Amino acid sequence: MAILLEQACSLLQENSRQMPVVELPLAACYGRILAQNTAADIDFPPFARSPLDGYAVRFADVKHATADCPVSLEVIDDVPAGMVPRTAVRAGTAVRIMTGAKIPAGADAVIRLEDTVTVNGFINIITAAGADRNICRQGEEFKQGAVLLTPGSALRDGALGILAMFGQDKPRVYEKPRVAILATGTEIVAVNQLVEPGKIRDSNSYMLAAKVLEAGGEPVLLGQVRDNIDDIEQRLEQAADIDLYLTTGGASVGDYDLMRPLFERLSVRPLFSRVAIKPGMPVLAGCWRDRLLIGLSGNPAAAGVSFELLIRPLVRRMAGVRQIERPRAAAVLQQKLVKTGPVRRFVWAECIFDNGRLAARPLLLQSNGMMAGLLEANALLDIPAFSPPLVAGATVAALLL
Amino acid sequence: MAILLEQACSLLQENSRQMPVVELPLAACYGRILAQNTAADIDFPPFARSPLDGYAVRFADVKHATADCPVSLEVIDDVPAGMVPRTAVRAGTAVRIMTGAKIPAGADAVIRLEDTVTVNGFINIITAAGADRNICRQGEEFKQGAVLLTPGSALRDGALGILAMFGQDKPRVYEKPRVAILATGTEIVAVNQLVEPGKIRDSNSYMLAAKVLEAGGEPVLLGQVRDNIDDIEQRLEQAADIDLYLTTGGASVGDYDLMRPLFERLSVRPLFSRVAIKPGMPVLAGCWRDRLLIGLSGNPAAAGVSFELLIRPLVRRMAGVRQIERPRAAAVLQQKLVKTGPVRRFVWAECIFDNGRLAARPLLLQSNGMMAGLLEANALLDIPAFSPPLVAGATVAALLL
Repeated sequence: MAILLEQACSLLQENSRQMPVVELPLAACYGRILAQNTAADIDFPPFARSPLDGYAVRFADVKHATADCPVSLEVIDDVPAGMVPRTAVRAGTAVRIMTGAKIPAGADAVIRLEDTVTVNGFINIITAAGADRNICRQGEEFKQGAVLLTPGSALRDGALGILAMFGQDKPRVYEKPRVAILATGTEIVAVNQLVEPGKIRDSNSYMLAAKVLEAGGEPVLLGQVRDNIDDIEQRLEQAADIDLYLTTGGASVGDYDLMRPLFERLSVRPLFSRVAIKPGMPVLAGCWRDRLLIGLSGNPAAAGVSFELLIRPLVRRMAGVRQIERPRAAAVLQQKLVKTGPVRRFVWAECIFDNGRLAARPLLLQSNGMMAGLLEANALLDIPAFSPPLVAGATVAALLL
Repeated sequence: MAILLEQACSLLQENSRQMPVVELPLAACYGRILAQNTAADIDFPPFARSPLDGYAVRFADVKHATADCPVSLEVIDDVPAGMVPRTAVRAGTAVRIMTGAKIPAGADAVIRLEDTVTVNGFINIITAAGADRNICRQGEEFKQGAVLLTPGSALRDGALGILAMFGQDKPRVYEKPRVAILATGTEIVAVNQLVEPGKIRDSNSYMLAAKVLEAGGEPVLLGQVRDNIDDIEQRLEQAADIDLYLTTGGASVGDYDLMRPLFERLSVRPLFSRVAIKPGMPVLAGCWRDRLLIGLSGNPAAAGVSFELLIRPLVRRMAGVRQIERPRAAAVLQQKLVKTGPVRRFVWAECIFDNGRLAARPLLLQSNGMMAGLLEANALLDIPAFSPPLVAGATVAALLL
């Protein structure tokens, strides 16, 4: 019995574990998933500061300044960025201040350098255009104590900048799940091997390894193994420190489909064997020694779809990612799609923006193989079961890859 | 004089070099940029094969088969995947065949297992539903000699699968450009240092390092240095094997802006010093010892925009990427945008799909700092010079990050 995709996803996630947490140097955290809350340890900016080079003044002194009637102020100090003002600004005085420097006490405005004229230790303020005051207030970006990042955040430019701003030089992140990939099938040979009659090279392992990396896991290639249950068992047993086992091939019910007998031999606790989607209906999933072992189809089109829909959310859940699903969007079919039927179907497609709308072009080379389709695909169209054939212009749901 | 963004990009690219080429094991190639053509070395599939488990037959024998009037055939061979058929199919015979196995000579159709009944070494074909023949023809996916990948292809799932299919176990890829990042400014302290009055921690280095990684480069963090031209020079001199030098801070014309005097001291051949965009107008770019040296603003909002518009395309060009620009799309403003003016302006924004259309929400915290904006930003809105204030509902151009 085939189970629904959502049920299959839930079963996998219920039977998976989140990865342990590790401290990493900040510079090594790109692409990692945060495992801690991060609060501002100080206000930011930590002090009122100037956004430009100019003069810190009392606004009351300069509010009537014009080019015809400039206001003259004595310059009593100079504050470069990184230094602390030594003097307060008093009536009739100004302090030269650099971008990023702390506003001296007594000042409540900064006049841009361009709006001043220097005359023998005094400045003439020639415009009151500083009415917006040019002061970045203490804490205007972040208040001390504010929680800025929470567990599950993906660490990219902005998040890494914030961790740095608030002193997190060794953030706690999740370890990456190590995902074993074993290609089974007597017809499969290694990429550097001679392709004898009846054989093909192993392309699934590399395609799936790329998808594991993209999902935030660490692929562990176990190579290729012929259709022999002892060999398959041995290869799986030899792999060390694996968090999730994937195989390709032998997941169906034919004479040489060895994953079912393997599950029995290894006392795998079965979860499901078929998912009600096409392609990728045969998927054998179970629990082996507290890890998930999942047998995908040997057909790259089917294995690719199964990975996207079942394995990627699982890997992301294990990796601690908050948002495990692909974004969904409505897209307009650019050509008809007749391959519908009683089973929910996923169709690789290329989506482009067409005048602010998303247009989807189904990639048709997916009956068998379809590596070429994967080159161009940036979406999977989700066609419901019992959908009628769809005409060009119809709106469909797209998972954006 | 500020030059146009497009001119600045051209100058940088004209003065850059593409990275050298290196051979890498296929499993290490994820995310790399291909530096070779890849043609199919064999047809794919390399032989006619069965897409399912069943019986290879002569279609002429079975075309009238029905459940009421089945056709009986003698089973004369069995071809597992990876094996070579030993016998040709003759009239009145069938060969058992597994998914992926080579079609025996004489057969021109495969009948699904489900449409047969086995009786003592014979099979009864009970439906002629095999009229589509169930044969994947030799070369139906790829013809031998077809060029499938060209230099500049990013190696992700589909491309890695294709390299594997055609025996490329050590593809030639471009080396990643090593991009030095030096944060200058007396106000800047390292992330693990005490934040004394007047100081802030270095967040730009980590934000930019993330952007370098995302662009396909390898960041080399040179740390933080105070506003001292000797110190800055020394730090740049000490960095080894750098393909591109970036600094933050000191790129403007204030008393403590040291990048201009540094350029003179190092005999940097200047390219430009201002780009006609906001934020990020001051950018000091030149050639130093056959490498580009680019001084960005110390303001994260400005440095981030400069990176996106100038540095990212440059890094991608150096890295060998074919598509160096971000995709552009029209987006509908969800709120008004009054901050326009005589200079072309870029505005961080969050774009979401709203009923198949792209809707843009400008992120306003970008006067100064704006790390929080970067957390949510997935687009940069491109507002032309002399644009009037824009109302909610107006269409704008968005660069999709």
